[in-house]
Amino acid sequence: MEKLRQLLAGDAFAARAGVELVEVRPGYAKARMEVTPDHLNAGGVCQGGALFTLADLAFAAVANSCGRLTLSLGANITFLRSVAQGWVTAEAVEVFAHPRVPYVEVRLTDEDGQLVAVLTSSGYRKSSSST
Amino acid sequence: MEKLRQLLAGDAFAARAGVELVEVRPGYAKARMEVTPDHLNAGGVCQGGALFTLADLAFAAVANSCGRLTLSLGANITFLRSVAQGWVTAEAVEVFAHPRVPYVEVRLTDEDGQLVAVLTSSGYRKSSSST
Amino acid sequence: MEKLRQLLAGDAFAARAGVELVEVRPGYAKARMEVTPDHLNAGGVCQGGALFTLADLAFAAVANSCGRLTLSLGANITFLRSVAQGWVTAEAVEVFAHPRVPYVEVRLTDEDGQLVAVLTSSGYRKSSSST
Amino acid sequence: MEKLRQLLAGDAFAARAGVELVEVRPGYAKARMEVTPDHLNAGGVCQGGALFTLADLAFAAVANSCGRLTLSLGANITFLRSVAQGWVTAEAVEVFAHPRVPYVEVRLTDEDGQLVAVLTSSGYRKSSSST
Repeated sequence: MEKLRQLLAGDAFAARAGVELVEVRPGYAKARMEVTPDHLNAGGVCQGGALFTLADLAFAAVANSCGRLTLSLGANITFLRSVAQGWVTAEAVEVFAHPRVPYVEVRLTDEDGQLVAVLTSSGYRKSSSST
Repeated sequence: MEKLRQLLAGDAFAARAGVELVEVRPGYAKARMEVTPDHLNAGGVCQGGALFTLADLAFAAVANSCGRLTLSLGANITFLRSVAQGWVTAEAVEVFAHPRVPYVEVRLTDEDGQLVAVLTSSGYRKSSSST
Repeated sequence: MEKLRQLLAGDAFAARAGVELVEVRPGYAKARMEVTPDHLNAGGVCQGGALFTLADLAFAAVANSCGRLTLSLGANITFLRSVAQGWVTAEAVEVFAHPRVPYVEVRLTDEDGQLVAVLTSSGYRKSSSST
Repeated sequence: MEKLRQLLAGDAFAARAGVELVEVRPGYAKARMEVTPDHLNAGGVCQGGALFTLADLAFAAVANSCGRLTLSLGANITFLRSVAQGWVTAEAVEVFAHPRVPYVEVRLTDEDGQLVAVLTSSGYRKSSSST
């Protein structure tokens, strides 16, 4: 897990967006990000790309928690509630631990525990071990 | 269109990610972003959230090009080719100009014109005019 | 609920595919379908369209359980495990009961309770009441 | 191509839904289905699962046109216009011919050439040859 933390700490884009990895264990990961004025879009709410970045780091943490390098083939994100400030937490669960193409669901919630967005993503695992 | 440009210029997150709006006209928009070390993930390639942010701005430009405020209900992004440096261009086309729930496709290409990612997104239009 | 059952009983395509609505209450619905040789594709496993039809009926049941006509704007389905025979059960949960654009998740499982597919779908509610 | 046609002719579910393969060549496939009362849902329009079945056969045709067995990992379908009768045509294009995880877009149009739905799907190719 320590290797995994270091690996994710090397995600420059997520780090600059303020994403922090809170917890990671096999099949589960939690990350968070505080929404500040820097994260807002022209409509005054958190940009979809910022929420995606948070969710993507949580996906990467859980998808790689098995120790084999896993890439995202793609993702589907649904925006349910806009957020203008405060912490957003992302909890990623590996719903299906397929050896090659795992499936992960990430739920984003605001400080009141309300759902902000849901991201589902299929990964693609290479053969070699990563951590 | 000038109002629309100003509106999008107010997207703090996209601006900080280096996204630039290049062109916008009814039904079409183009934006670009130069991938730098700040955009990379732990794997050394452009983070999915950075590509999503670029695509999202292009979506917003085209979806709002009709002058009515349009939000993204969600998006589906497929990553086809990784990029480690150089310009990525996003071209957004409003495939279906539904008055309430338009459908937009955004194609991201690298400097060689190769497809990097495809994002499709459904918007939701409120009743009032935005620009 | 009786009106809703009748409404769904009018789904000719789902009925011909052998889909049965098992249970429906506000925010939840369950449907099932027995996979027979008629449901198989050229690869000898249940066709994706058959699984989609089952999931779609469960979506329709839960999305309309509030009594207002709700259409599907689109759906994302991920196939996790192939099925060649036996019952597949679909459980639909309205994750987000937005008045206009609700969000539903449907999980399909086989007779052993193993996940077969997951469908997520955003609906679009018209103003008038349906049942 | 003849082998491929035979392969697809073995899709019992699509055949029963009235789906016909019209054309197939490397990177492109066309299929069609006539919407009859048997295809309608309770709302009196073509069921989403019927449209998905049509699109899925076109996907399978193009994804397997290279001669290597390709499964669908999942798909995203957006419904743009409802259809109550007449022919719906599906044109599938392999947008990205990745050796392992190709990406296909399928557009469904009605008899007037109007877009009915768009399906995008990622496939997963096994190592062995199929045709």
